[in-house]
Amino acid sequence: MEPPAAPLIRHLCIIGVGLIGGSLARALRQAQAVGEVIGSGRREEPLRKALELGVIDRYELDLGRAVAAADMVVVAAPLGAMGVVFAAIAGKLPPDCVLTDVGSAKGSVVGEVRRLFGGTPPGFVPGHPIAGTEKSGVEASFPELFRGRKVILTPLLETDAGALERVRRMWELTGAEVVEMGVRHHDEVLAATSHLPHILAYTLVDTLARLDDRAEIFRYAAGGFRDFTRIASSDPQMWHDICLANREQLLAMIDLFCRDLKHLAEAIDQGDSATIMTVFQRAKHARDNLYRK
Amino acid sequence: MEPPAAPLIRHLCIIGVGLIGGSLARALRQAQAVGEVIGSGRREEPLRKALELGVIDRYELDLGRAVAAADMVVVAAPLGAMGVVFAAIAGKLPPDCVLTDVGSAKGSVVGEVRRLFGGTPPGFVPGHPIAGTEKSGVEASFPELFRGRKVILTPLLETDAGALERVRRMWELTGAEVVEMGVRHHDEVLAATSHLPHILAYTLVDTLARLDDRAEIFRYAAGGFRDFTRIASSDPQMWHDICLANREQLLAMIDLFCRDLKHLAEAIDQGDSATIMTVFQRAKHARDNLYRK
Repeated sequence: MEPPAAPLIRHLCIIGVGLIGGSLARALRQAQAVGEVIGSGRREEPLRKALELGVIDRYELDLGRAVAAADMVVVAAPLGAMGVVFAAIAGKLPPDCVLTDVGSAKGSVVGEVRRLFGGTPPGFVPGHPIAGTEKSGVEASFPELFRGRKVILTPLLETDAGALERVRRMWELTGAEVVEMGVRHHDEVLAATSHLPHILAYTLVDTLARLDDRAEIFRYAAGGFRDFTRIASSDPQMWHDICLANREQLLAMIDLFCRDLKHLAEAIDQGDSATIMTVFQRAKHARDNLYRK
Repeated sequence: MEPPAAPLIRHLCIIGVGLIGGSLARALRQAQAVGEVIGSGRREEPLRKALELGVIDRYELDLGRAVAAADMVVVAAPLGAMGVVFAAIAGKLPPDCVLTDVGSAKGSVVGEVRRLFGGTPPGFVPGHPIAGTEKSGVEASFPELFRGRKVILTPLLETDAGALERVRRMWELTGAEVVEMGVRHHDEVLAATSHLPHILAYTLVDTLARLDDRAEIFRYAAGGFRDFTRIASSDPQMWHDICLANREQLLAMIDLFCRDLKHLAEAIDQGDSATIMTVFQRAKHARDNLYRK
């Protein structure tokens, strides 16, 4: 039996120490839930920075060595780099080591793990903290990032109950609320509430930025525009990866949106007040309900 | 010669005492720039409320009587009600009275004034304060609403220079920055930075609100979604009016946006990373530049 003072995680390996990975390490340290934090990743510079900031205790550029002593491995690398990570650590995880990730699309991550591990490791718990800012990098990390936020876990049929429980406990210690759902359902929900809005914000700003009088146009952007376009300041590479990883669900949502937008445009064109009012009122009602205290 | 202590406006008549009209009255009182404030409008209840709050000194439900003593008339009624207002005050304005409005689309307002006044009164200065919140009504009004915001005036060929100067001075006293541009250009700029974003926000929330698993979907909306959809809580009637008043420019912007969205969706479908990255990077660059301190 473990003494009561033993931390939840003895050796935590975080692969990809950026905003999410760095904030997780900070939160677990603050909760005294972790012994040693080992960082890893493709580039040395962010790891050195993370070490300087005290976010990690040491780093290993070699992924196999990084996970060698770990009892919990969190892959917080960009979605587009996950395949490389899984290929490098497959077969290198210690027995009973729990493996989880923070990818914003789960179907593609699960597919890559299955392909590269030659099956689904029972210790693998796919996860996704719904948290973040438009900033990125370990310098932007802070221990309260997950407080009051939701973390979605999408356990598979093969997932070990003990591994699931450890990952759940880890996230709860950061102050997050942990929920479970299926992989496909996760990807649908996120396409609707996160991936589509990002696509709309990026497209809007880009459409305006390519107009001839863009300087003039942007000069008159007011507060509403600032809030509306905030997510267009998000990391392009990260969102590129998400779009491709959740391609199918995202394209379905874009189609749905375009159909509705076309319908509304027709109503405006025809001066169809009833349709316009119905859409606006239904939207206001839904949005007001959502954020009612 | 006027004594130096005389206020800029002796008798200010505000037709439509809501968020904008109420905030203007409050700001001008604070600047000691106004003698008497007369409120008018279709419904008595908001006027009684405005009187209780000290925003106006008295009110007149009869529009002709409301403007009878005014040296400045500000029409802050919804765009859809402006025709009725202009019809009621045409021929009733005292000589040398300045007439201005706060409509979010200028082509339609100018058209209505010309039609209902039988020409363009020299004292008419079309205007648009780029300010507001998703709240509405006189209860939401506050004197600082225009501080640091832009007010666009779109004077016409017939506009009297003295009238223009008085309206400019009025808005400057609220702390706003006053700029001038042509009617058509105003409507283009606002379609791009304000009307299109509202349409996108309303459509997105409505699209999601009509999905079968809407309750589940909204539960996982994060901070980005909250900011992105804030403008979908705006007043449906007001935005209905704006969409119809600026129909032509808005539909042109929706077309442009749809074309770009379709282009991006194709790139995602085909895994065309170069195109996706170009759009996202260009958008991030434009947005970051816009709000760089």
